[in-house]
Amino acid sequence: MEHGFPLPPGAVIGILGGGQLGRMLALAAARLGFDVAILTPETDAPASRVARQTLVGAYDDPDALARLADLSDVITYEFENVPAAAVERLKALGAPVAPSGLALAVAQDRVAEKTFLNEAGVRTVAFATVDSEDEALEAARLIGVPALMKTRREGYDGKGQAWVEHAADAGAVFAGLGGVPCILEAPADFTRELSIIAARGRDGALAVYPLGENHHEGGVLRRTVAPAPAAAALVDQAERIAAQILGRLDYVGVIGIELFELADGRLLANEIAPRVHNTGHWTQDGCEVCQFEQHIRAVAGWPLGPTAAHARVEMVNLLGAEAEAWLKLAGEAETRLHLYGKREALPGRKMGHVNRLSPL
Amino acid sequence: MEHGFPLPPGAVIGILGGGQLGRMLALAAARLGFDVAILTPETDAPASRVARQTLVGAYDDPDALARLADLSDVITYEFENVPAAAVERLKALGAPVAPSGLALAVAQDRVAEKTFLNEAGVRTVAFATVDSEDEALEAARLIGVPALMKTRREGYDGKGQAWVEHAADAGAVFAGLGGVPCILEAPADFTRELSIIAARGRDGALAVYPLGENHHEGGVLRRTVAPAPAAAALVDQAERIAAQILGRLDYVGVIGIELFELADGRLLANEIAPRVHNTGHWTQDGCEVCQFEQHIRAVAGWPLGPTAAHARVEMVNLLGAEAEAWLKLAGEAETRLHLYGKREALPGRKMGHVNRLSPL
Repeated sequence: MEHGFPLPPGAVIGILGGGQLGRMLALAAARLGFDVAILTPETDAPASRVARQTLVGAYDDPDALARLADLSDVITYEFENVPAAAVERLKALGAPVAPSGLALAVAQDRVAEKTFLNEAGVRTVAFATVDSEDEALEAARLIGVPALMKTRREGYDGKGQAWVEHAADAGAVFAGLGGVPCILEAPADFTRELSIIAARGRDGALAVYPLGENHHEGGVLRRTVAPAPAAAALVDQAERIAAQILGRLDYVGVIGIELFELADGRLLANEIAPRVHNTGHWTQDGCEVCQFEQHIRAVAGWPLGPTAAHARVEMVNLLGAEAEAWLKLAGEAETRLHLYGKREALPGRKMGHVNRLSPL
Repeated sequence: MEHGFPLPPGAVIGILGGGQLGRMLALAAARLGFDVAILTPETDAPASRVARQTLVGAYDDPDALARLADLSDVITYEFENVPAAAVERLKALGAPVAPSGLALAVAQDRVAEKTFLNEAGVRTVAFATVDSEDEALEAARLIGVPALMKTRREGYDGKGQAWVEHAADAGAVFAGLGGVPCILEAPADFTRELSIIAARGRDGALAVYPLGENHHEGGVLRRTVAPAPAAAALVDQAERIAAQILGRLDYVGVIGIELFELADGRLLANEIAPRVHNTGHWTQDGCEVCQFEQHIRAVAGWPLGPTAAHARVEMVNLLGAEAEAWLKLAGEAETRLHLYGKREALPGRKMGHVNRLSPL
């Protein structure tokens, strides 16, 4: 560390995580003249191959964290399951970390998350905490069935969750998830899943992208269409939610907020991701400043960039062997191809995405 | 080398040169899932910091070339003064090099270049070869004065050239340029300097970007406005020139062709650069597929991408201390900032550029 905010070009952005989000952050940082240092437990990680420096180590390895703090002028992360202790350690070493530990703490625990959202005036589905089989039964009576049991921590892309169809089965479902702390959520009777990608700068300025409409398959994001068709009132509602969340977290960086649109037009918040987000990949080819550059701008203390769309985009994830269609995709005039440099196309693994453009 | 064309994602693009053009090529290659290896004599070169691997060595170091050939599935370059012997050596090692040695040979020698252009049916200014003071005097009589004496090789951004104002001084001007082989060129009575950025794929397909209008200061590119206002006939003429040059060179990759527009509407070709080109930087923010991705697509044997503009762009180079205005520039909503990560802002050095966008 040698620079204050705003960080000058040539400063070093440290990134915890070496996957595709870290890679695309590193590419955006390079465009602005920054150097990038990655901490990842993997050798040959996708982000490492475009970073100036990589530290291979565990996220809670004290030596690796000390080296990263020493190298970096600011440290950010590409995933929300960074150990809280790692962020504390980096802070103790004097390294600025953005987004802050509070955002991580909220995002890492589904109960803390929904509690935070409700306290911020943002509606969610009804939920109850489940720490035992007895509490599971009680929660199922309280929430009603069917209801969705999820582990409070970890779990993504549909993992770590199961439906409770009959209240009497709630205990068994809890046990089936490993008996770890859980949350029981009422189902949302939504008509659409939307998300809003937003950013907050070190000066408190907000920048909000147009809404994306998301389609999942098997718990994994399949595609996002953006800007999503939406009346002005709906956009206002979403932007208000983003402002409430970002302000209350004193947030710095890009956030992804998943929303449910109900039949009556109300929005519920489902989940927040304190990082760049898969449902924001469309901004790479649909907006002048994409979510990756926006995140780098925010954490570096730069002014935020414009967020208006100049094209309509259908973002489609390339999962596993789907990425083998690269040659066909590269030949489609309206298709922009983004591949992550992953070596093995394991089934369901996110290998890349395409942004298919059409006029607004 | 292990892959044939089209190169699959994960293949390695070798690049001779570690400057800003190599850096932006490396960023584009990474988006498509390629790895990049750089050969550069510099340590800590701008391109190295975003490449998977860097070999630090001279461009004609046989060991470095052998290692680069071994690492890379295709090799390209960011500047036209690559030693011809280096390309020959890479070819002898079985490494595909694109664009080919012919394009380099033509671009490295101003006499070969203009001779090639005329043979390809592309008009240039009148010129004569100068190898001695006597030939200089003879050439000045033939071409008339004022005329521009340039070294046949090297020399860029206004270096290695001098005006002959009086025919009798031609010998002294030749001596002043070091007595090395020169060319004497008639001045072009042009109304505008334009350039056309074009690409040719391994399958012979052509892709041509809209014309750029260029403004130089002190022999260095100051700004490019694109798409340049131009009647259809002028665009046709420029595209025909590009097609003639690319076809005759059996070219693979992106080329930059500098043009003079005369008062009568005719175009003369001034210079060709067998690489991505400063006057094509506007495509990064004005087109869906920029010149850097286009070059990677071409050398990798991929289909070429679309070249239409979706915005009007004024590209302005940031020279030397001008890049210190990064914070102000980052705050301009219409300005996209590109910085090269160079450590020292020497006077006149290209430190970055901005693309200022406006609606088409």
